[in-house]
Amino acid sequence: MNETYVHGYNRRENVRLHDQAGALIDLLHADTEYPAGSRVLEAGCGVGAQTVTLARGSPDAQFTSVDVSGDSIAEARRRVDRAGLTNVQFRHADIFALPFSAESFDHVFVCFVLEHLSRPVEALAILKRLLKPGGTITVIEGDHGSAYFHPDSLAAREAVQCQVELQRQAGGNALVGRQLYPLLVESGFEAIRVSPRMVYVDSSRPDLVDGFTRQTFTAMIEGIRENAIASGLIEPERFDAGIRDLHRTTHADGVFCYSFFKGVGEKGRGAQPRGEQPCSGGDAR
Amino acid sequence: MNETYVHGYNRRENVRLHDQAGALIDLLHADTEYPAGSRVLEAGCGVGAQTVTLARGSPDAQFTSVDVSGDSIAEARRRVDRAGLTNVQFRHADIFALPFSAESFDHVFVCFVLEHLSRPVEALAILKRLLKPGGTITVIEGDHGSAYFHPDSLAAREAVQCQVELQRQAGGNALVGRQLYPLLVESGFEAIRVSPRMVYVDSSRPDLVDGFTRQTFTAMIEGIRENAIASGLIEPERFDAGIRDLHRTTHADGVFCYSFFKGVGEKGRGAQPRGEQPCSGGDAR
Repeated sequence: MNETYVHGYNRRENVRLHDQAGALIDLLHADTEYPAGSRVLEAGCGVGAQTVTLARGSPDAQFTSVDVSGDSIAEARRRVDRAGLTNVQFRHADIFALPFSAESFDHVFVCFVLEHLSRPVEALAILKRLLKPGGTITVIEGDHGSAYFHPDSLAAREAVQCQVELQRQAGGNALVGRQLYPLLVESGFEAIRVSPRMVYVDSSRPDLVDGFTRQTFTAMIEGIRENAIASGLIEPERFDAGIRDLHRTTHADGVFCYSFFKGVGEKGRGAQPRGEQPCSGGDAR
Repeated sequence: MNETYVHGYNRRENVRLHDQAGALIDLLHADTEYPAGSRVLEAGCGVGAQTVTLARGSPDAQFTSVDVSGDSIAEARRRVDRAGLTNVQFRHADIFALPFSAESFDHVFVCFVLEHLSRPVEALAILKRLLKPGGTITVIEGDHGSAYFHPDSLAAREAVQCQVELQRQAGGNALVGRQLYPLLVESGFEAIRVSPRMVYVDSSRPDLVDGFTRQTFTAMIEGIRENAIASGLIEPERFDAGIRDLHRTTHADGVFCYSFFKGVGEKGRGAQPRGEQPCSGGDAR
């Protein structure tokens, strides 16, 4: 996974840390449950924020969680141990060079990973090879272009756009959420269903105002300040005005909206292409 | 209702006409049901697109539907008659001068109306006076700033922005959906809960590709072409490029997202302000 990260692992970490009420975890993960005995690959587990939720939600499934960062794997292992979970094993590996045989897994799970990849279809095709026929892939991604708010602010939108542009320059795609359907089609999956998971925040939900609008989304944008300015994408005053306006949306009359997308696809049971090539996906809908 | 309409009644009409599968009607209205015997005011019924859904969904409630346009009322009456519904009466009236006594209704329903009003809080306060204590208001509005799509296109976003600007110049607010919570708070309603209703369209849903992306949203933007160009908001070539890019999102790899918002608030049972003033809403959350 030779990709440059714009914001490290902070965002998914923050989603977990600040989601005191579990509302976001439910929104993203409540409908993911794997049968007893199934083998599940979590590709790109990071520091294990999703791993704990996954392994707890499917206590009788066996998870293999991989990440390109050894430090992250170490932290994920500590976290899973602290949670008392025994159904996860970790492997330190690149998503483009995974040490598994074809058709090794019943299911694959990918969360907040594709946004960082310049070749997401290639990654999905590799993961598809590792799936048994009839197995599923579940992909969850955010989409920074889905953020809008009240009061509206051009400066705030420009600050968010800096994040989109920096991620693009790093080879990633901050708008990947809306693209899950075509990406899964192009990778050859079948029976694809994508559903948006919109986080709607007004002041009747102070947990989300603080945990999502302030500590997750706005904090993420604040985190690219130096990089955005150094890259010449925006003037410091303009960026800071955008951040002030994002904070303004956390007032009593403010509203903040953001959407994640969750896609599930199946690996067909039909004839597989010969040799080691990923499926061409010709029979996908 | 002395407001200039940007697009007449076409949009809400289109939502109905092209929603062959009923998916949008379910998304917006499935959770609205009024008890037997309750009196419900539909403020701004237009040509009755929602009236038929409402009256069918609550066959034992009594609806009073008003609109500022006599022609629209006539069409709404024909439509309700054709549907065989007998629980609706119509009144030709301005929302700012409604011919009803205070506390006449158990519930109020408002759909695709606030976006056209320059004084939405005033309208909501007037409607609140007509509610019995403990009665509810239900408000449904779109939000054109919630539209995003794949492939993304700056030209398409600029064409959409023309609609937002024209509606603003006409005294309306095309971003009103995201503002329902603060508007209901400011109008003095209590126990307010707002939920987004996101329309997510990919090519696995050809009914929505045609009925919503093409025939409803893109057709609405196409409809402002002359006005947007005459107002100097955009060059013809740029607008047309934007429309082409909106149509591009209807291809097999395209995705289109739009959100409606639905808000429900209650009129408190506590002490009412003296005289004829609308409630101040001091105890609203």
